[in-house]
Amino acid sequence: MPLIGDVGEDALVALFTPRLPTTSAALLGPGDDAAVLSLEGDLVVSSDVLVENRHFRREWSTASDVGFRAAMQNLADIDAMGAVPIALQITLAAPPRTDVEWVLDFADGLREACEPYDVGVVGGDLSGGEEITVSVTAMGDTKGRSPVRRSGARVNNVVAVSGSLGAAMAGYHQLENGLAIDAESVDLFLRPRPRIGAGIEAADARATSMMDISDGLLMDLGRIARASNIGIAIEAERVPIHPSVTRVAGMVVGNPLDWALTGGEDHHLVATFPPRSDLPRGWVPIGLVTRAHEGVLVDGKAPSRWGWDHFVRS
Amino acid sequence: MPLIGDVGEDALVALFTPRLPTTSAALLGPGDDAAVLSLEGDLVVSSDVLVENRHFRREWSTASDVGFRAAMQNLADIDAMGAVPIALQITLAAPPRTDVEWVLDFADGLREACEPYDVGVVGGDLSGGEEITVSVTAMGDTKGRSPVRRSGARVNNVVAVSGSLGAAMAGYHQLENGLAIDAESVDLFLRPRPRIGAGIEAADARATSMMDISDGLLMDLGRIARASNIGIAIEAERVPIHPSVTRVAGMVVGNPLDWALTGGEDHHLVATFPPRSDLPRGWVPIGLVTRAHEGVLVDGKAPSRWGWDHFVRS
Repeated sequence: MPLIGDVGEDALVALFTPRLPTTSAALLGPGDDAAVLSLEGDLVVSSDVLVENRHFRREWSTASDVGFRAAMQNLADIDAMGAVPIALQITLAAPPRTDVEWVLDFADGLREACEPYDVGVVGGDLSGGEEITVSVTAMGDTKGRSPVRRSGARVNNVVAVSGSLGAAMAGYHQLENGLAIDAESVDLFLRPRPRIGAGIEAADARATSMMDISDGLLMDLGRIARASNIGIAIEAERVPIHPSVTRVAGMVVGNPLDWALTGGEDHHLVATFPPRSDLPRGWVPIGLVTRAHEGVLVDGKAPSRWGWDHFVRS
Repeated sequence: MPLIGDVGEDALVALFTPRLPTTSAALLGPGDDAAVLSLEGDLVVSSDVLVENRHFRREWSTASDVGFRAAMQNLADIDAMGAVPIALQITLAAPPRTDVEWVLDFADGLREACEPYDVGVVGGDLSGGEEITVSVTAMGDTKGRSPVRRSGARVNNVVAVSGSLGAAMAGYHQLENGLAIDAESVDLFLRPRPRIGAGIEAADARATSMMDISDGLLMDLGRIARASNIGIAIEAERVPIHPSVTRVAGMVVGNPLDWALTGGEDHHLVATFPPRSDLPRGWVPIGLVTRAHEGVLVDGKAPSRWGWDHFVRS
């Protein structure tokens, strides 16, 4: 099994590039100083970095899991603006002793996530490094829609989420504790599957604010509340909890609602809609926008836990 | 002096973001799920990753040097397509024990490189990591120009470069050997200063192929030769050698021409132009495009050294 330090950068690029997804938006793909993309509307762009042992662990995630998650969480960021994702740029730093096969499997994961959406990986860079560090920049096209920001929520708007929450937390909990109660949630932790396109439907339904839930519903609602200068009142019983959460939490004396409210990384969207909106299919109302001084409340009470921070906890 | 592991991700972002350069092309800057940019033409995009102790050393480079270089080498990639750079996305992974001040100085270097060109840093991500890893994605706007690729060189085209070469190598050589012969070349190694805009002038002068010289003139000419299926014949005495190269090489028994031909990281451009072109000001002709089977020759001979590879040599 050859190692990337043995084959060199140019040879690795030559093996890696053909495994990447392509997009019909590319006028010029990988291989030149830059790629060239054709857009109909404005450019929407977002980046994430994933670091080994902080954002993923190689004993839990295959290389294709890492690629899949890296792509999907960035597609969700583009969707969260109400834009259409079109392309990714990927940089990868990896120890020279890394198997070439790992890097090629990583490309396969990128492709599995991107291909259903006509999203291409149009360029990037590969380097040696002490640990695996993946950086993803996702680009999208507004196609004439106005981007949906975090700052547009207004009092009496309806707060809604685009999917059921907590599965990634239930998967993480099993991996962390060596349990094997529910395979679906483990898979959803390793390969989040937000419904890309939910954000465009929300934009078309005149969503006033939107973001993807990456650090936990409550922490991310706090961000919308601050950006919009409003408060948010959630009704706990309306929060859709992924069925696997109840299965796993029941076995380990966890609180399913707590996992759904604070577990991050499901990458579904949360948005606010004008009063009396017909929500798009798949969107579930969970509460209302209130005045700023009321803060973020669950059943009228201030919650005590707020998700996580990647600097202080891996 | 606070450390980034002490202040946490949100607080660090709040300190970092106001130091970043902005651009008039941004409809929405940092702080939401994604930034939004307005383009006149097609999108041009390129990425690089810079890893501590491979692409820079903290005992040589200040944080602002790292930021400056990270930005500038990516602006050069956009310029090398004949496009106008408009924005960068930056991800930074750094050990939790890194001084907050290092991260803020890094932002200052980004700003110093970008501000003269109305290029903004419109988004990114910060994370902990074992070593400092910077990933930069640069975006540019073709503004209606056709991108200049590596593959368009034709037999009898004129080969030209946009600046004098070898200064970064002369600077590197001094740092590597603890010498202090010439401060200008040390500065140019730490802060490359290609003339951004040279590529647009070349595109307007109907350049047939172009790229930025990042791995050494000969290695990069080899890439144009392969992409265009042509050969290239360089006349050694026409290659513009930066004055600092002669100063430094003379003191250490180095060969100035060798440094100019194989030293990377000056980030000037090399391009090919139709026969009998009036080259734009600042462009220096160094040879001609020949048939593919002749390869890349210097004064009729095949060179023996080809620059470097970041996996096998730092």
